[in-house]
Amino acid sequence: MKKLYFITSNRGKFIEAKQKIEPLGIKLFQKNLGYPEIQVDTLEEVVQYGIQYLEKIFPHSFIIEDAGLFINKLNGFPGVYSSYVYHTIGCQGILKLLDKTGMGRRTAVFRSVYGYKEPGKKSMLFKGEIYGKISISEKGKNGFGYDPIFIPDKATKTFAQMTLDEKNTWSHRGKALEKLVGFLSKKID
Amino acid sequence: MKKLYFITSNRGKFIEAKQKIEPLGIKLFQKNLGYPEIQVDTLEEVVQYGIQYLEKIFPHSFIIEDAGLFINKLNGFPGVYSSYVYHTIGCQGILKLLDKTGMGRRTAVFRSVYGYKEPGKKSMLFKGEIYGKISISEKGKNGFGYDPIFIPDKATKTFAQMTLDEKNTWSHRGKALEKLVGFLSKKID
Repeated sequence: MKKLYFITSNRGKFIEAKQKIEPLGIKLFQKNLGYPEIQVDTLEEVVQYGIQYLEKIFPHSFIIEDAGLFINKLNGFPGVYSSYVYHTIGCQGILKLLDKTGMGRRTAVFRSVYGYKEPGKKSMLFKGEIYGKISISEKGKNGFGYDPIFIPDKATKTFAQMTLDEKNTWSHRGKALEKLVGFLSKKID
Repeated sequence: MKKLYFITSNRGKFIEAKQKIEPLGIKLFQKNLGYPEIQVDTLEEVVQYGIQYLEKIFPHSFIIEDAGLFINKLNGFPGVYSSYVYHTIGCQGILKLLDKTGMGRRTAVFRSVYGYKEPGKKSMLFKGEIYGKISISEKGKNGFGYDPIFIPDKATKTFAQMTLDEKNTWSHRGKALEKLVGFLSKKID
């Protein structure tokens, strides 16, 4: 059986990926190894830079993932800095910034990028995104981060009001993961 | 005469430094060379990481500088991401986040860190900071960035309401630069 490492400190992300990847006959391990995230505009650059750093110190096949919420009216804020912004001003800060903004102007997109690297091979990126709106107030207790304020287009509730399975059918990370799984399954055939 | 490079794309910062450094008999050149800024909590880490990157590709004596505004009530936001935050939500975004917060709870600190690197020598960091408050509204037309909303303690106007000379006597960057100049002047003796 092949081995693959998911370099992440987030156990939830790891379990989500493990459920989709192990049925392919690939054993997925979690590896908690820090890597620098740079200040750039796109998740692709963050992930590409992470891979370039990690491939020098970790000579095995691995995946990494980064995600962000991009709000149109705020010029893409909090974007690739979503985690930092969440830990300083939180969902309440985002709601305050959108105060008095009607639903029609609260459009946003959640993006996720998975990076895959195999020693001696070119790295591969897999992107998923889901368009939606920022709710007027926080709703729901599930999930994490901005889940209580994000309502996907065509849905009537926030990510935090959905079960994990329900969220994963819509989610940016679910979609990116699906593409990664498709790629890995072809490699194995 | 010795040569020193200031690696920055900001002409204003360069001119400010040139005025203080050239009287020491050191010729300062501006070098517009990009370097990755990482997502960390302190300016020191950003500058240290920048030096480590640059020393590999630029084998001359150089300085770099990074600055940020840290607002207590916002858990240090926008901090090392000040530039990104300014270009997305701006001064108005900061004022919105502090909406209904009385002057007593609008405390903030502006920090600047200069890094100095000479080939074959250990790098040196020089830090300056100025405590103050975030004003209720934007005031003044001078300066740049958050200058219209920052009032230093013991001052009665914002940085943007001051002349450049006046601002530099108070400013975080002025103080960090003073320390760097002190260090450089001892090296020359």
